[in-house]
Amino acid sequence: MNTNADGNATIHPALVGSLSTTAPSDAVINFSPGPTSLPKAVEKEITANFNKPGLTSLALSHRSPEFVTILDHAIASARRVMAIPDDYVVLFTHGGGHGQFAALPLNLCQTQSDVATYVVNGTWSSRGRDEAQKYCQVQTVDGRDPKTGQFTTFPELTEANIDAKSRFVYVCSNETVNGIELHRLPKLPESRRHIPLVVDASSDFSTKPIAWHDDGVGVLFACASKNIGHPGLTMTVVRKDLLGKASPLCPGVFNYSINNEAGNLWNTPATFNIEVVGLVMDWLEREGGVVENERRCIAKAKVLYEVIDNSSGFYATPVQNKALRSRMNIPFNVKGGDEALTNKFLIKSWEEGMIGLRTLTPFGAGDYLRASLYNGVTIEEATRLADFMQQFARENA
Amino acid sequence: MNTNADGNATIHPALVGSLSTTAPSDAVINFSPGPTSLPKAVEKEITANFNKPGLTSLALSHRSPEFVTILDHAIASARRVMAIPDDYVVLFTHGGGHGQFAALPLNLCQTQSDVATYVVNGTWSSRGRDEAQKYCQVQTVDGRDPKTGQFTTFPELTEANIDAKSRFVYVCSNETVNGIELHRLPKLPESRRHIPLVVDASSDFSTKPIAWHDDGVGVLFACASKNIGHPGLTMTVVRKDLLGKASPLCPGVFNYSINNEAGNLWNTPATFNIEVVGLVMDWLEREGGVVENERRCIAKAKVLYEVIDNSSGFYATPVQNKALRSRMNIPFNVKGGDEALTNKFLIKSWEEGMIGLRTLTPFGAGDYLRASLYNGVTIEEATRLADFMQQFARENA
Repeated sequence: MNTNADGNATIHPALVGSLSTTAPSDAVINFSPGPTSLPKAVEKEITANFNKPGLTSLALSHRSPEFVTILDHAIASARRVMAIPDDYVVLFTHGGGHGQFAALPLNLCQTQSDVATYVVNGTWSSRGRDEAQKYCQVQTVDGRDPKTGQFTTFPELTEANIDAKSRFVYVCSNETVNGIELHRLPKLPESRRHIPLVVDASSDFSTKPIAWHDDGVGVLFACASKNIGHPGLTMTVVRKDLLGKASPLCPGVFNYSINNEAGNLWNTPATFNIEVVGLVMDWLEREGGVVENERRCIAKAKVLYEVIDNSSGFYATPVQNKALRSRMNIPFNVKGGDEALTNKFLIKSWEEGMIGLRTLTPFGAGDYLRASLYNGVTIEEATRLADFMQQFARENA
Repeated sequence: MNTNADGNATIHPALVGSLSTTAPSDAVINFSPGPTSLPKAVEKEITANFNKPGLTSLALSHRSPEFVTILDHAIASARRVMAIPDDYVVLFTHGGGHGQFAALPLNLCQTQSDVATYVVNGTWSSRGRDEAQKYCQVQTVDGRDPKTGQFTTFPELTEANIDAKSRFVYVCSNETVNGIELHRLPKLPESRRHIPLVVDASSDFSTKPIAWHDDGVGVLFACASKNIGHPGLTMTVVRKDLLGKASPLCPGVFNYSINNEAGNLWNTPATFNIEVVGLVMDWLEREGGVVENERRCIAKAKVLYEVIDNSSGFYATPVQNKALRSRMNIPFNVKGGDEALTNKFLIKSWEEGMIGLRTLTPFGAGDYLRASLYNGVTIEEATRLADFMQQFARENA
């Protein structure tokens, strides 16, 4: 506890999610759930671009040949890194993931009586479902653990719970708040394979391969601010046969077809943000692509889950099924959520430069802290947190 | 005309809207209609922020106290500069101006049978009207010159052309393509003053005072990429009594009330873009505020219109009514649109560092070039173009 100038107690900045740690800047590791740090090499490129003489991308007209080159490059680079097939278009869309929550049913359902199936197994699929209910008939596959009522499991997808008339089946491939990840996309039952799978990959896109055709992906979207850039932009990949089917109520900025026909220039896109996505895709390619990135993501998560699982209960994580544990966001509590010890952990880690472990989210993560391990975090940095956690447990068990 | 390595003729970069001029970088003046350069002092601040050690705003969680300080600062600074009264809320919204084209009727009309009046006197009000027709009954006040059918005038607003039941009356205060600006907002007839005025101020916000109460402004929005920042963000100012009236079909990201209640954090906002708007507002305040900025805008436009009007027809601009001429975007043609001479003008000015005078817009500006004089262009820079135009006319008359 600190005191202010009047000698009164003040809340320590680490406890209100401050990112301005007292650690030297080269020691800072950003475990924030996003927006967060980009890979250091990408951050350096951005800075270098700003230091060059002449116009930065911020000053480029979106219709200039210079920006169109940046746009085409970002799309081509993303296509290579994520092996996006030719029968899909790559769109840069407005409005973040929440924009797509509305855009999806508005693009895939012509009327409000069309049916869509939502697999709800965490905060973000719940938000996606809630928004869709404005625009279509939603059938929910409840993903909660039937015993505890908690979002710690993923339901089986069966003929019985997927209406054959569904315009799409919606899943969120990584639930950041709940710490659940689909390491591979689910297969729909044989008799439902005609239904396009729609994937909110906002927080895990670029961290594992996507089997676009085999998994029947119809639309996949990723807000940029976790793994591939910064907020104000969403990448949306749409299978071409799903274009041209939007509801008459679909706002133009959300309409996949008209944005595709306009080459992502129906209205002014977030130019600088698109450039950054291209830089991140280039970085991924240089670093060995999505296969190597998945290997790193597995390794980063492993060091932390091992500390938690081997802590004799000092740390706990809610998802017991290891096949579902998120590699991106690792929720953990300290001694069952003990407030004093949790605060001590937060302050001590913050003073050592490990920031973003608790954000003031309104989504009720309970007593859980979260270590987010996006592309900006290296294996060495994840290991530093793991080492810290081990030592803290030894000193405070 | 240039030739490529094979000796074939290639199109000169100036003619396809290239911004990569051969002029030295300190001689470059960006007359682009947006996205475009910010004031040099602001660009320096952005670069300095990127060069500081520690986290840039790109890496800040939107829920961190550090970002909330940036957000609050940008709003407070905009409130001071634009004298936004307390009974208005300031929102940072997604989807650019086109997003607001849909958001407006979705926030102000509860059903599709609600009536709204659109004053259509150029490209952008046409686009706004077209989008609104999805969500309400639009009554159009046609702003074209009845003699020529061209968008060169602004219609009188009367009891006869404004339905008393209108949920709002929509105007675009600066038509960038057509070169028409409302230097002050129009007054509705006495019997229609109960209707909120809705203003697309995307291309002139911050360049003149707004009489929020006296002009009955209900909603005013400005995409950032002209005068106040870069694309991916729109500032939307909403009178409080208009909150809570959205259609059930309004997407959450577009809903003014829920975004206001969430303090602009219902979903992840474009964090860096918001920081830049704050820097521009600070710059405006330091430079003397909106009154001084309007004086500069008048002066910048004056030097160019004088050259055009005094050129004995060598240059022509479409809007004859000087009270309606845009200070932001000055359309002009060269010798009645003579192609060879226009190309010569474009190449020569480009080689001297004056870029952005022709962009490859799909909106059909005809033969007109356009000089856009947003906040990033100084009086000295506008004068350099005026001097160039005079000399070019002397040499090619």
